[in-house]
Amino acid sequence: MIYKLLLLFLLTINLDIIADEGMWEPYELPKLESELRKSGFTKGVSELSNLFEHPMSAIVSLGGCSAAFISPEGLIATNYHCIESSFLQYNSSDKQNLFETGFLARSRDEEKKSAPGGRVYITIESKEITNEVLAGIDDNTESLKRSKLIEDNKKRIIKECENSEEIECRVRTFFSGESYKLEKLFRIKDVRLVYAPPAYVGEFGGEIDNWMYPRHTGDFALLRAYVGKDKSSKEYSKNNIPYKSNSYLKISAKGVNDGDFVMVLGYPGRTNRLLTYNEIEYDVNIGFNESIKFLNQGIKLIEENTDEKSGTKLKYRGRKSGFENYYKKISGQNEGAKNFELLKTEKAKWEEFLTFVEKNASEQEAKYLQELLALIDESLAEDLAQRYYGNSTLISMAQRIYRNAAENTKPDSERKPGYQNRDQERLSNSIKRMDFSFDSAVDKAIFLNRLESYKNFSKDLRRPVFSKELFLDESFAFDKAQKKVDQIYSSNFTTSTSMLKIKDMSLKELNSLNDPLIAFVREIYEESLKYEEKYEKRNARRQFLKSNFIKLLRKYNNSVNREIYADANGTLRVTYGNVAGISLRDGSFYKPFTTLEGIAEKHTGVNPFNVGKNLLEKISKKEYGDYFFESVNSVPVNFISTLDITNGNSGSATINSNFELVGLAFDGMIETIIADYKYIPQARTISVDSRYLLWTLDEMEKASNILDEITVVY
Amino acid sequence: MIYKLLLLFLLTINLDIIADEGMWEPYELPKLESELRKSGFTKGVSELSNLFEHPMSAIVSLGGCSAAFISPEGLIATNYHCIESSFLQYNSSDKQNLFETGFLARSRDEEKKSAPGGRVYITIESKEITNEVLAGIDDNTESLKRSKLIEDNKKRIIKECENSEEIECRVRTFFSGESYKLEKLFRIKDVRLVYAPPAYVGEFGGEIDNWMYPRHTGDFALLRAYVGKDKSSKEYSKNNIPYKSNSYLKISAKGVNDGDFVMVLGYPGRTNRLLTYNEIEYDVNIGFNESIKFLNQGIKLIEENTDEKSGTKLKYRGRKSGFENYYKKISGQNEGAKNFELLKTEKAKWEEFLTFVEKNASEQEAKYLQELLALIDESLAEDLAQRYYGNSTLISMAQRIYRNAAENTKPDSERKPGYQNRDQERLSNSIKRMDFSFDSAVDKAIFLNRLESYKNFSKDLRRPVFSKELFLDESFAFDKAQKKVDQIYSSNFTTSTSMLKIKDMSLKELNSLNDPLIAFVREIYEESLKYEEKYEKRNARRQFLKSNFIKLLRKYNNSVNREIYADANGTLRVTYGNVAGISLRDGSFYKPFTTLEGIAEKHTGVNPFNVGKNLLEKISKKEYGDYFFESVNSVPVNFISTLDITNGNSGSATINSNFELVGLAFDGMIETIIADYKYIPQARTISVDSRYLLWTLDEMEKASNILDEITVVY
Repeated sequence: MIYKLLLLFLLTINLDIIADEGMWEPYELPKLESELRKSGFTKGVSELSNLFEHPMSAIVSLGGCSAAFISPEGLIATNYHCIESSFLQYNSSDKQNLFETGFLARSRDEEKKSAPGGRVYITIESKEITNEVLAGIDDNTESLKRSKLIEDNKKRIIKECENSEEIECRVRTFFSGESYKLEKLFRIKDVRLVYAPPAYVGEFGGEIDNWMYPRHTGDFALLRAYVGKDKSSKEYSKNNIPYKSNSYLKISAKGVNDGDFVMVLGYPGRTNRLLTYNEIEYDVNIGFNESIKFLNQGIKLIEENTDEKSGTKLKYRGRKSGFENYYKKISGQNEGAKNFELLKTEKAKWEEFLTFVEKNASEQEAKYLQELLALIDESLAEDLAQRYYGNSTLISMAQRIYRNAAENTKPDSERKPGYQNRDQERLSNSIKRMDFSFDSAVDKAIFLNRLESYKNFSKDLRRPVFSKELFLDESFAFDKAQKKVDQIYSSNFTTSTSMLKIKDMSLKELNSLNDPLIAFVREIYEESLKYEEKYEKRNARRQFLKSNFIKLLRKYNNSVNREIYADANGTLRVTYGNVAGISLRDGSFYKPFTTLEGIAEKHTGVNPFNVGKNLLEKISKKEYGDYFFESVNSVPVNFISTLDITNGNSGSATINSNFELVGLAFDGMIETIIADYKYIPQARTISVDSRYLLWTLDEMEKASNILDEITVVY
Repeated sequence: MIYKLLLLFLLTINLDIIADEGMWEPYELPKLESELRKSGFTKGVSELSNLFEHPMSAIVSLGGCSAAFISPEGLIATNYHCIESSFLQYNSSDKQNLFETGFLARSRDEEKKSAPGGRVYITIESKEITNEVLAGIDDNTESLKRSKLIEDNKKRIIKECENSEEIECRVRTFFSGESYKLEKLFRIKDVRLVYAPPAYVGEFGGEIDNWMYPRHTGDFALLRAYVGKDKSSKEYSKNNIPYKSNSYLKISAKGVNDGDFVMVLGYPGRTNRLLTYNEIEYDVNIGFNESIKFLNQGIKLIEENTDEKSGTKLKYRGRKSGFENYYKKISGQNEGAKNFELLKTEKAKWEEFLTFVEKNASEQEAKYLQELLALIDESLAEDLAQRYYGNSTLISMAQRIYRNAAENTKPDSERKPGYQNRDQERLSNSIKRMDFSFDSAVDKAIFLNRLESYKNFSKDLRRPVFSKELFLDESFAFDKAQKKVDQIYSSNFTTSTSMLKIKDMSLKELNSLNDPLIAFVREIYEESLKYEEKYEKRNARRQFLKSNFIKLLRKYNNSVNREIYADANGTLRVTYGNVAGISLRDGSFYKPFTTLEGIAEKHTGVNPFNVGKNLLEKISKKEYGDYFFESVNSVPVNFISTLDITNGNSGSATINSNFELVGLAFDGMIETIIADYKYIPQARTISVDSRYLLWTLDEMEKASNILDEITVVY
């Protein structure tokens, strides 16, 4: 787990670009042709910018992860760590632990359904809509009004766009609100598990090797997308048929060699390369450490409050590994900021930028920049306390149900985004997922612990009603808070079944339930609306001011002949580069490939380095099959390349010039993970090699059904 | 500190040799000519086997470390860690800490004298004397008689050999007593410190980087040997003049490149490559862990009982780093034994050997082998308890004084080795060294703690009188032991001055002192003699049986066209090989060179990674002077090569085909340190590069006096 996206923090842009970096939108590629040629790309560049054509039409999103079609019958390749929660955790039980056994469907009827809400998204359109989103707005529009207008415009655009049940539309923000695009997605609702190796392959090395290289993780899994017989998107049904995509990727058994051209097509979630210096400084000096503290506490809380016997350990497996993943990543960023002297280099650039602003910006532009920086400083302090507010899945879920009932009193078009008709299914699925990822006692313990931290923030940083209801202000009265929390958790609605029953109740019905959870939610309802409005207002102003900043930044960069590109925002992007080793420490060199022998070398018999006997035997007997790679004298397991990826890219197809799948990107290296903030030439992307995937399917699993279905290029 | 020899354990041989391994005696080199040529050696091979000629005549021993003459005026280059105790610790005080400041004598009268007993040994002869040592002995000689005869023969040989005061002779055991050689050494008694860098250069990386690569340690220092005006060896005197050696090494400023031929001339202390399988199995399954426990306890004891303020921390610095060095080494061997499957491979070889023995050995030979294995098993168990016996420097010193007085009642030729006239000076120097490396309270604390462990061994493994005197057998009476120890340490003879006063007293005078320390020593005297005799008897038998084993082993090896070479035993040896990087873990490669930039990279401002500003500035300004090496685009700091070295090789000159000094060997790599037991092709020797030494002297120290004296080859 690694480059899977976890929407834990609302992080927030940064100067300077060089030619060989970047996560490009497909339409931008033609202008990069000469750069692509230099890197070794041989095909037509225009092929890459058409979303409806191969290879782009083979690329999909799983929501948080990336993936690709690899057969005409809807077969999808992605990372193992992208399917752990929705497929392995969901389909495991006391009797059958799929993490231990792995899973292979030898025929289609053996395939396993996904947890509620398991989806495949195919981008079928991406359209510039800045004018539409900002219609009716000018520089003088008051912030709250601005916020409301943008919200209404977006809702209208989405409503118009979502002309069928299988289409999902999203308005995506680029350059912090300087521009907007409409993303039209075909949403497949029936997704099934076809193959996952045992965890000792799929997450070999576990948390210890996470974000590390040399790496030996078989981070691959196969899913299949199903649709109705009429080819429309349908929920799971036995009558559904495999989705036939416009195109699919062939899989290379030749793979790549050192120096070869590669690119990654996927959905990177978020980068922070266009931040103001204030934001960078805050993250480096305060934010990173605060996040580390918060995440570490979260990991400990789960460890202390879950166990194997009660099944809670399995339920919180996904949450915990999410925390661990970000804990390690941000710890790496913290180190990287020092090693790559982030503050020093960014401050120097920022000062150049400020000098440019002084000479070239209008008085108004300069004023806006000042205001932005003040606003950033103000909100950063509040955000810290805000992180410890809430943290109860139970209460959050009840709040969503209560809010949903409140919004349902209005016509659909006037309801808040998230509570419209289009959102009802998602809300139900969220509730259903509690079955395998929620436990009331564990949730309560986590909430209480976070509350104790929240209580320590000064009064003006805390929500007054919430604090009062929970007795947070009375000194030595934390036992009262505990009692109150006990009472809230004694609710009748602490399971998915009971919650689904009240999901569609009217506000009146909810209010008459006389339940401590609903009562508490009602008590803090008005306050939460007030805070929502406050943040909306501030964010609207911030967005306006940021787009002004971006304009200045672009002017400045153009003045020194540089272009800026948009930060990652969950939209389809292309990054290209070459297979290459790297020296990150004097005297030491990371080779571009790792091999099967490295697995045996790391195997200790103790998790996460405890592979099966069969695997060890094949390695010791050198049973390389058709996947032997002379350069490494073995089967390559993982390889590194100069690709520029981030969280959300997990599962992305790594392809060669012929658009053949040569790997699946899954991780970066802890030493250069600060690259989210600043392009680092030494940064490398770790991919699992297609030859290891094929070797596993062929030599280990004898999965002839899959090998027959996919197209292997020898 | 690394490859300095620490005589802590009496360790004890192993099958199989391949052509490019080995620590060869100089006389053996001509037969290796074709191998030397293959490695790239271009000079005449015969030049290497003459001890009186260049380059061999430039190679010296410091007793525990190796070194080499680098000027016609007695200037010697060795490792920094070889001079820490006798020069830096000895010459440091509250006012001047030479570890912090480093030291450079800008003129000869500034040079600092060594601690008592600081010596330089030059091997001037090496002679086969097996028949002489074993004169009067046959296979049926009873063990104790055998022991006594060998002892008497050795004493006579040494007496005949030591025909002048400046000559020291040693009878060296080869192949576990199968053969003997007489080593004749010229002993220089006036050795002075010329140059040591600050500890942040000399032991950069400290314990953290010890036994590790990539490495950036400036592990070099310079001494000067002085003799009387008549060229005879004299103790320190202002009138002494620099020793003029037969030859000296020029220093290469061109250094080596990847793949270049190199060799190391030095004094390796001990290897265990000709062990029986029983011994290997014991070490791997029990011995390593027991040593780790013992050493770890020792480190903790010193940490807990010493402090900066009282000066005890400085006094125990050497002892502690010795413990730490071996703790890390044996931990590495413990790991390496698993990683390189020592038991598996050695057991297979051992079984082949046993099959050979069954078919080819006489009944008597086979019987001897059986007896050897039984004897080994028996003694290994006792050795463990034995390790915890003693451990009091104070008591040991008093025992030596008491024994000395007892031996003095006999004619010199009949005294026990170690107590003859030739040994008196060494005994006095041992006492004098207490001044800067002993503290009565610390010594007592260590003794008491070790005693508590000793007490836990079963009664039959402990010395009865010693145990009774210290109340070790009475349960819950350890407080009595403590009281007794307190009483012993209340002696009047706990300093070097007081001990020197009683050193030459007669036994009668000692007995009349009425001192608790002397009283205790007298109480256990008879018992210690009894145990000495017991061990002598057993060792004599073991040696006899081992030489039988070696004969069988040689026969076996010859039957499969292999030769065996003698384990390292502190005699002058030559190892040759090439500069080469190494991949020890899949996906990762250690480059052959590290550079100045790596120092800045590791610098954290916290010890042991806390170098001076001046150094950092020169690195950041790329002030490489004449020592820039294009291949690494900087000044190389350390380099690795395929040389086969071990403890005792520290300070050894690493030279090229032209016999120019290109480095000083100082360490091995933790991953392959099991090489003491079995030749590991991946093992590498770490040398500090001559270019870093020259850069330091030139760019950092502006040591024009030294640069003028040495011969630098550009």
